[in-house]
Amino acid sequence: MRIALDAMGGDRAPEEVVRGALAAAPDLGAEICLVGLSERVEPLLRENGRCPDNVSFRAATEVIGMTENPVSAIRRKRDASLAVAIQMARDGEVEAVVSAGNTGALMALSKMRLGTIPGVERPAITAPIPTLAKPALLLDAGANSDCKPEHLVQFAVMASQYAADVMGVQRPRVGLLNIGSEDFKGNELTKEAAVALRELEGPGLNFVGFVEGDQAFAGEVDVVVCDGFVGNVVLKVAEGVGDLIMGLLRQEIARSVRGQVGAVLMRPIFQAAKGRVDYREYGGALLLGLNGVCVKSHGRSDAMAIGNALTVAKRSVESSVIEHIRESCARLAPVPDRA
Amino acid sequence: MRIALDAMGGDRAPEEVVRGALAAAPDLGAEICLVGLSERVEPLLRENGRCPDNVSFRAATEVIGMTENPVSAIRRKRDASLAVAIQMARDGEVEAVVSAGNTGALMALSKMRLGTIPGVERPAITAPIPTLAKPALLLDAGANSDCKPEHLVQFAVMASQYAADVMGVQRPRVGLLNIGSEDFKGNELTKEAAVALRELEGPGLNFVGFVEGDQAFAGEVDVVVCDGFVGNVVLKVAEGVGDLIMGLLRQEIARSVRGQVGAVLMRPIFQAAKGRVDYREYGGALLLGLNGVCVKSHGRSDAMAIGNALTVAKRSVESSVIEHIRESCARLAPVPDRA
Repeated sequence: MRIALDAMGGDRAPEEVVRGALAAAPDLGAEICLVGLSERVEPLLRENGRCPDNVSFRAATEVIGMTENPVSAIRRKRDASLAVAIQMARDGEVEAVVSAGNTGALMALSKMRLGTIPGVERPAITAPIPTLAKPALLLDAGANSDCKPEHLVQFAVMASQYAADVMGVQRPRVGLLNIGSEDFKGNELTKEAAVALRELEGPGLNFVGFVEGDQAFAGEVDVVVCDGFVGNVVLKVAEGVGDLIMGLLRQEIARSVRGQVGAVLMRPIFQAAKGRVDYREYGGALLLGLNGVCVKSHGRSDAMAIGNALTVAKRSVESSVIEHIRESCARLAPVPDRA
Repeated sequence: MRIALDAMGGDRAPEEVVRGALAAAPDLGAEICLVGLSERVEPLLRENGRCPDNVSFRAATEVIGMTENPVSAIRRKRDASLAVAIQMARDGEVEAVVSAGNTGALMALSKMRLGTIPGVERPAITAPIPTLAKPALLLDAGANSDCKPEHLVQFAVMASQYAADVMGVQRPRVGLLNIGSEDFKGNELTKEAAVALRELEGPGLNFVGFVEGDQAFAGEVDVVVCDGFVGNVVLKVAEGVGDLIMGLLRQEIARSVRGQVGAVLMRPIFQAAKGRVDYREYGGALLLGLNGVCVKSHGRSDAMAIGNALTVAKRSVESSVIEHIRESCARLAPVPDRA
């Protein structure tokens, strides 16, 4: 198996990306092909002596920035590292692509070059959300800001398959994110999507109905379905609330000697708890709905996050999740021709 | 000043509501008229001896449940405590209404009986969100699940006035909740609303642009504007993440004696931090856009929360915030006639 890794993607690229590849290589059981600017990447590959046999390099001459407008960036930068990596997947040179770079560009390029699975109108991005037990899967995490009910239905089917194949959840409980559990609550989008999902409920889809934000983080479902705007807000709010709570504790600790002693004793506790909500632990997010495995790693990815994203890519290829999603989506209503 | 208090509203009504009224009465500087079922409320008023002079009682014969469909409930239950309380405001018997009951019913009834301010199509509900500094104001917290750009503009103008008058913020920074700060990011709703808000920006409205969920909880703005679906998701997610972090810490503490000692020492720290994010501390949420002061207290309100909601009601009347919102909204484009 070969995986193309966009060496220039992410806030800490290429240094942390290359470090992550080199650290993951010995145990990954797959070849990693780093794609990026020669003058930036090659010195890093040589830095610590010999490069592992299963790490190779492919040159690209351009880089798409993290905050660039994806549409204009992919038009202008034909030889961007991200574009080259995805082209390798299209040409069958690699079985998967991993990038911590510009999400919009990754999505647009992979949609264009790899195409979408029949029955899927809009590919979406997964994100893990932490709970007291195992993490739940949120979809869409931000690829599609404006959705129609049928998109949410497609998200539900794809995410359910992903949770089963890649996360190892048997008969995943799929919830639709809403602002109440009663039928009359919600917006037009969720109300209509719920009706369609109830019709699909059966052996292939374990739709458990509406789920609220607090229930999602309490682990009451395995899959949380929402549009990409709401999904991205959920992730950012979770991050913000985590930071706020830690900030409040720090402020209060600073006011009390007793608290400072307690905080020292509790340091390992805080570290353990933090590790359990750390995005780096969860690896990358698969883009679902594409004819291929594309993994998006967090923009702030460090070497460890890159390593985990590579593992997600490998597991996705091995589990044939794309094939299974293709089969599940064949059951869905045909995508209307809106072009 | 007189305030009608729905004694039957909330998960812990009427006991906690009555307790809250009795506890708040001595220092409130306003009369409280409890509205509810005689057989449930009157014994509570007599329980601890003499009822304070500024607490009175008005009988109602029905109660709207917390999860009842608001539309059918207000049609069937004409003599519900909530309906009676709002009718008192309409008749000029009271200057404000406070309820911890069914939000949808409170909104629908107050809209019907008190009417909306000219220029406002959809009244909305405020909610405080905690930050390291002072709380920010989120609007809409859940009244309007499907919004148009002009609604968000109205929300921004009203919330800005409320933050200035009732929360004492000078020239409040108003942010539009989005999933990125660049112009091309967001959904159609936020992109269009941003254009309209930029046009209004001036002495009367300090619109600072897009704000992301993490920035909102970092206190980067004073007012966070979003549709009611997103707003309610934000609040529920914040609650869920807070519970999750505390749950994770508890799990980790249970595994280590050192951690347990630290936790005992840190108990006052946790309590102080918790108090700073406690919904009860923040009092009630004003319904903005109505011709009158209606305060919604949290459904789980205890006596302390009720007391704070009464204070919010009193401060809202005193500050003439409704009059000021009326003046601000007169600047807005006329509401299109969609009836």
